[in-house]
This record gives sequence, C-alpha cells and structure tokens, in this order.
Amino acid sequence: MDKLKKNTKLWSKAIKIIPGGNGLLSKRPERFLPDYWPTYYSKCKGIEVVDLNGNKFLDFSNMAVGSNILGYANEKVNKYVKRNIDSGNNCTLNSPLEVELAQLILKFHPEFHGVKFAKTGGEAIAMAIRIARACTNSIDIAFSGYHGWHDWYLATNLNSTTNLNEHLLPGLSPLGVPKQLIKTAFPIRFNNIKDLKKIFSKKNYPKIIIVEGARFDFMSKEFANELMNIKKKLKVILIMDEITSGWRVRNGGAYQLNNIKPDIVVYGKSIGNGYPITVLVGKKNVMNFAQDTFISSSFWTESTGFAAAIKTIKIFNEENVAKFLVETGDYIGSRLLEIAKRENLKIKINEFKPLISFKFLDFENQDLINTFFTQEMLKRGFLATNSIYLSFAHKKNLINLYLKNFQEVLHTIAKNKNDIKGKLLGKIRSADFKRLT
Amino acid sequence: MDKLKKNTKLWSKAIKIIPGGNGLLSKRPERFLPDYWPTYYSKCKGIEVVDLNGNKFLDFSNMAVGSNILGYANEKVNKYVKRNIDSGNNCTLNSPLEVELAQLILKFHPEFHGVKFAKTGGEAIAMAIRIARACTNSIDIAFSGYHGWHDWYLATNLNSTTNLNEHLLPGLSPLGVPKQLIKTAFPIRFNNIKDLKKIFSKKNYPKIIIVEGARFDFMSKEFANELMNIKKKLKVILIMDEITSGWRVRNGGAYQLNNIKPDIVVYGKSIGNGYPITVLVGKKNVMNFAQDTFISSSFWTESTGFAAAIKTIKIFNEENVAKFLVETGDYIGSRLLEIAKRENLKIKINEFKPLISFKFLDFENQDLINTFFTQEMLKRGFLATNSIYLSFAHKKNLINLYLKNFQEVLHTIAKNKNDIKGKLLGKIRSADFKRLT
Repeated sequence: MDKLKKNTKLWSKAIKIIPGGNGLLSKRPERFLPDYWPTYYSKCKGIEVVDLNGNKFLDFSNMAVGSNILGYANEKVNKYVKRNIDSGNNCTLNSPLEVELAQLILKFHPEFHGVKFAKTGGEAIAMAIRIARACTNSIDIAFSGYHGWHDWYLATNLNSTTNLNEHLLPGLSPLGVPKQLIKTAFPIRFNNIKDLKKIFSKKNYPKIIIVEGARFDFMSKEFANELMNIKKKLKVILIMDEITSGWRVRNGGAYQLNNIKPDIVVYGKSIGNGYPITVLVGKKNVMNFAQDTFISSSFWTESTGFAAAIKTIKIFNEENVAKFLVETGDYIGSRLLEIAKRENLKIKINEFKPLISFKFLDFENQDLINTFFTQEMLKRGFLATNSIYLSFAHKKNLINLYLKNFQEVLHTIAKNKNDIKGKLLGKIRSADFKRLT
Repeated sequence: MDKLKKNTKLWSKAIKIIPGGNGLLSKRPERFLPDYWPTYYSKCKGIEVVDLNGNKFLDFSNMAVGSNILGYANEKVNKYVKRNIDSGNNCTLNSPLEVELAQLILKFHPEFHGVKFAKTGGEAIAMAIRIARACTNSIDIAFSGYHGWHDWYLATNLNSTTNLNEHLLPGLSPLGVPKQLIKTAFPIRFNNIKDLKKIFSKKNYPKIIIVEGARFDFMSKEFANELMNIKKKLKVILIMDEITSGWRVRNGGAYQLNNIKPDIVVYGKSIGNGYPITVLVGKKNVMNFAQDTFISSSFWTESTGFAAAIKTIKIFNEENVAKFLVETGDYIGSRLLEIAKRENLKIKINEFKPLISFKFLDFENQDLINTFFTQEMLKRGFLATNSIYLSFAHKKNLINLYLKNFQEVLHTIAKNKNDIKGKLLGKIRSADFKRLT
C-alpha cells in the first residue's frame, strides 16, 4: 500500500465546521506535511498507528504531543481505567481515587503537602497563576517558555507580538485578551541570566515567576542558581511548569536535577498516559490560597484521570521508565550523529534526550528540510519529524528499524542537497502560529 | 446497616492534603450534611450509589452535579467508550470522532456552522468569552447566572463581593483576579428586565452578554424578547450558557423554547453522561475568531469525551430522554405539592422541572430545614436535598419509593416543626462559599 498519498478528505470537512480543524495546534497536518500527513487514526497501540485507510506507521514523532509515555493503549493502564468505568466514573459523591492520587503524588514530593487536580494543562497553569496571585496579592508575572492559551500568558503579546519569539510558539495572537492586562507578563529567555537579572532588578519587579523544567535543553546550573538567589532575596513565588518535562528524566520534575525549590509544580500530559489529568503540587501555605479564592470545576472530580494517573505513576516507578527514556534518548542521539557524519551532513542534537530533537545544520530553511524528512520517512512507514517524544514502547528493535530508515533518508538528503525543494511532493510545513491561521 | 453514621475518616485525610478536600465546591459534604454525608462512593450504577462501607443509597440529589442524565455507568455509553479506549484514546494523529461529534452537534443546530470542544465547563466559557471579545474587539461583559471560576467572571466581585448575590453562588472571592479587570463584568438578575435595560442604556454598554438557558425557572418570554431587542438594536454578541440547562427539556438548549438566536451556545456536563467534554457551537463568522486569537489545548483532542458524547446524544434523541425528564419532573412536582398539603406544610416548586427544586416555606432558616431533610432521607437510604437533577434512570418504581419516604419525612418535619434544630444530629449545612472556606 502506498503510505505517501494525498489524504485530505476528512480534514477538509473538519476545517469547514471546526475553526482550525481541531482543538490543538500541534495536531494540525500543516505542521508536518501538508496534504500528505495521514492526519487521522483508526487505531493505535504501543507506537503503531493505523490511519483511516489501514496504513500502519511507527510513531517516531510526538506520541500524542508527549501524552503517552507508556505507549498507546497501554494494557495495564486501560484495564485499571475500565474497571473504574464499570464502577461509575462520576457520581454525586467523591471518588476515593482523588485522595489516593494526591497521596501518591506527595510520596514523590516529600517537601510538599498540597495537591489540586484539573483536566487540561492550560487550566492547571491558570489555577497556579491564580493561587500565586492570591498568595502574593500581586498581578505581574515573569515567565520563561510556553504556558498555554489563557489571558495571563497571551497578555505578554499585547504590547508587541514579538514577545514570545523565543518561547516555542512565536507570534501568538492576543486578540480578545483584555488590554487592561498590558505589561503584566514579562518574558525571560530560557537559561538567559541577563534577562532574569534585568526583570528582577526593576523597582516593581514581579512577585511571581513561572519557568519550564526543560524544553530543548536542560536548565543550566547557573540559571537555576540565579533563580534561587532571586527567590530567596525577593521572596517571589516560583512555579515550575513540568507539563512537558515532568516524569521523563526522573519520577517527578526535571527541576529536581538542580537545587531548585519551587512553591508550586504543575504536571500534565505524561502522568495519565493519554488520559486528561493535570496536577498542581506545592507548599501547603501557598496551595491553601486555592481556598481563599474561588477555584472549582465539575469535571475536575471525574475519576477516569485519577485512575489513569495512579496506574501510570506506579508503572513509572516500578519499571524505572525515566531511566529507560534517558538511556534510549542518549543512544539515539549518538547514533544520529554517527549516521550524519557518515553521510557528510551536520546535525545538532539538543540536550533534553527523552524528548530528543535535532536540527539539520546544512540547510537554511529548517521548515523545508524537515518537511522533506517527514515526507521520506512517511513513505517508509514512520511518523517522524525533527523531534521524538520517546516512550516506554520505543523498544530496541523498533529504534534500530528507525535508525536504518533514518540513514537511508539522510543518504537521500545528502544526494539531493541542492534541490530539496524540487523533491518535495507538496507544500512546505508551517510551524508558525501566524501562518496556520 | 446504619446508613446515618459519622463518616469523616477519608475526608479528614483529604482536607489535609487537598485544599478544600476536592476539586468541586458542590461535592463537599458540608454542603449536604456535615459529618454524616457518605462523601465517597465505591460504586454507582443507574441511580444506586454504594459508599465505602457498603451502604446503598438511591441518588435523588444531583447525579454528579447534573452530569449523568442517563444514569451512572450507562452500559451503552460505557461500551462505546471502552471500545474507543481499546483502539487508543489519544494519538499524534487526530480522532475522527472529533469531526463526527461536531457533525452530530450541528445536526441539532441547523442554524449554526462552527463547533469547538473543551474538557471542562469553566474553560469552555472562558473560550466563548475570548472568542466574543476577539469578535467585538471589546472587553466588557454583561452576564446573568453562574459561569465558573475564571478571571473574567470573578472580576465582577472586584468592586463589591455582593455582585453575585443573586447568581447561584454568592460571595465568591476574586482574590488573585487582576484588579485591572474592575468594572468589566456586569451582573443582570435572571428574568429582570429592569437590570437588562439599565446596563444597555449606558453610553458604553457591553458588546457581549452571557445568560444561562434556565436555572431554577425558565427564561420569561418578556426577558427573552428584550434580550433579542437589545441584540438586534445594539449588535451585541449573545452567548447562551446551557451547561446546566442543556439537553434537559429538548435536544439542544432551553433557549430554543424561546425565540432566542444566540451567537454561541455552550454545553457541558450532561452531554457526555459523566465523561469530561464541553462544547461550543455557534455562528460561523463568530466562531471563526477562535482562529484569529490563540486557543489550543492538548487534552481537548483526547477522544474519550467525543466517544461518550456521540453515544449519549444519540440516546437522548432515540429514547426521547428530554421528554421523559420533563414529564417525570412534572409528576414529582405535583406529587410533592399534594404530600405537603396533606401534612399541612407549604412548599414552593420551581418551574424548571428536569432539575426540580423546592423550598420549605414554613421555615425561616432554609439551611436548617434542608439539613434535617437530608438527614432523615439519608437514614432511609436516599441521597437527597432540596433539588433533584433527574435522570433517565429515575424510573417510576424508584420515584414512588422516594415519594413514600418523602411523605414520611414531611410527616416528621410537621411533627417537629418547632424543634427541628433539636432533632439535628450534627451541624447545619453551609451552602455559602464564604462559610466553606
């Protein structure tokens, strides 16, 4: 069966009735391979994905944007979730799983004593911001990284839409965000000590800072130390956004690799192996402000996510999943460098290996070369782009299969180095928010 | 087994590690029967709830705060959800169920052409507000009713915490909400034409209004007409919040009973029979602003909620569930009045019968009499308070059993009319936000 085929039937229906086509920028086909990306799945298991035409692919791209660390449709997690569904996933009374999950989270964070749950990452971060604002009785926020679609974050783009240029998704439009919030959110580039010092040397420095645990690279020791200096000296509230980085390098957050002592840590995605559940865990005196301001939502008490997270975290711990992800990322990283060298191509591998990402240094237009890479890998049965969210289901034999195909594609790239555009079947991908709207 | 027993073991653990004890005000035991409410469930099915001690109760209270219209653990919905889980509930690619659900929603709203999904009610309303603000390029909002925990809503309490006094949950604290948002949200009492006219006669009237479809009573014809007059004359964007009222009186919103033509309608709770899924449906030219501003969240594309909602809405339609709820509510309403009359007690029944609510008119302290009612009904094996979210699982024999026990309890109330407090085993419930924190 031809795996590289125009494939736009359902998506063209979708974009007519769902603005944007779906609920998540990172799942839009234009971000991968316009017109040819399979876009929809009928079944997925482990890292195998079956599209609507019965084509099978191995997922070496983002594993549901990092949600499925144990692989798709994990038997143990699903069995536990289904048992919970049979017992009734929602009720007038509360689920004891909410307390059990809170206790389990605290087991991995002995320094904390307060936990809250939500369903999505955006709302969990919005809750953390509300708690921090209530606790400090202040509004301004310094941030580094990507933290979702809510007003507090997009406010940074009210005075200039270039403010998020170095924070994963540049140019996000703040249309509809109250103009009153102008100059309430201040960007700091990841690992940029100068930015950090500048913002906190202002007379009216923000009393709150939120930082990602890791993105493409780990947080540097210097940045971490400066963060803690500022925290101690100025008594700012520190929130770690570990939605992307959490539970991938250890049981807990990437922040624990450094000597960082946050007030609140937010986890999402990974902890429910694909089921919607997000977590805030933090110091009791800070978290208790969740009671002094009004924060409440019906579906936060629905129990599917609690069940999924309890089982997922237990497996993380019992099977030492984080160790597997780190070692697998290291192995892939070194092999990619070898292969590139053999093909006389230069690639750069980022530090945060459980979410390994690479850059083709010989090409100016990254979107062009990445589109071609995706096209060629798709032809060979791989969902692939220039980063891989590794999972526990990325077993050695599958990885070696990927590496073999990676080598073939790099060979093709080297051969066609000066006419990549001519070898492209369709349009170039659009990674930028602006070009997607 | 004694169904009325002190029962605080797990809850006292919970409140130590989860601020507030859980994620939802409406599931806190203090709101029903302090110390004696069973608080946690081990299993629920239909309207039967089993607590952690094996006691069985019939749920004539809120059915997961209105989430389970088909009853708990509905076989057909669960079977469909479990099939979806086996196929992988989340993936790098999109679920075709997202498009199928959008098409199904539009089938019941032929006047609309745009759909978006979220997981929780609060975030769905926040999305609707963002879209409306982007579309009108304005910030101010007039509202009636309860619309969640987000900044835009709580902003109304920034200048006075009495602003929500007549909107379901009075006194909600806006601590941590940016003070910059003061005077951006303006309350209108439900069905109060004077309030409505006053706000929209201001020179700088809000360009956005959000109203609940129904709460205790239906929207009056006069209020609906005035709403449409204002909408036409001033071109305001009208959002109907049908999270509580939707799909209970007909397939779609309660607003459809009147000649209301909203721009956006929001559904939640009911449409997934307990699974987290919320929906925005509206006019295409308005909904398309979801693309001009940045709105995106990973778990919105997770498919459990799509599966649950597809099956739930099909059952609503095939089994004519709304008709059942209305007729059952009418039957209960008339029987309650009869019983009260026989016992020489006065009760008032509200209009919106699928969520039937009543008030004991002979008593000044409503919290006192309702606590006693809950205590006596619990003793007899019922989760009950002064309102019932009816479900398709509230079958005639169960309702008659409830009515028989209701009569016995009313008899006890009549007999102890002057010493209800003396007959109370524990504390009086706290329905107010302030007293819960």
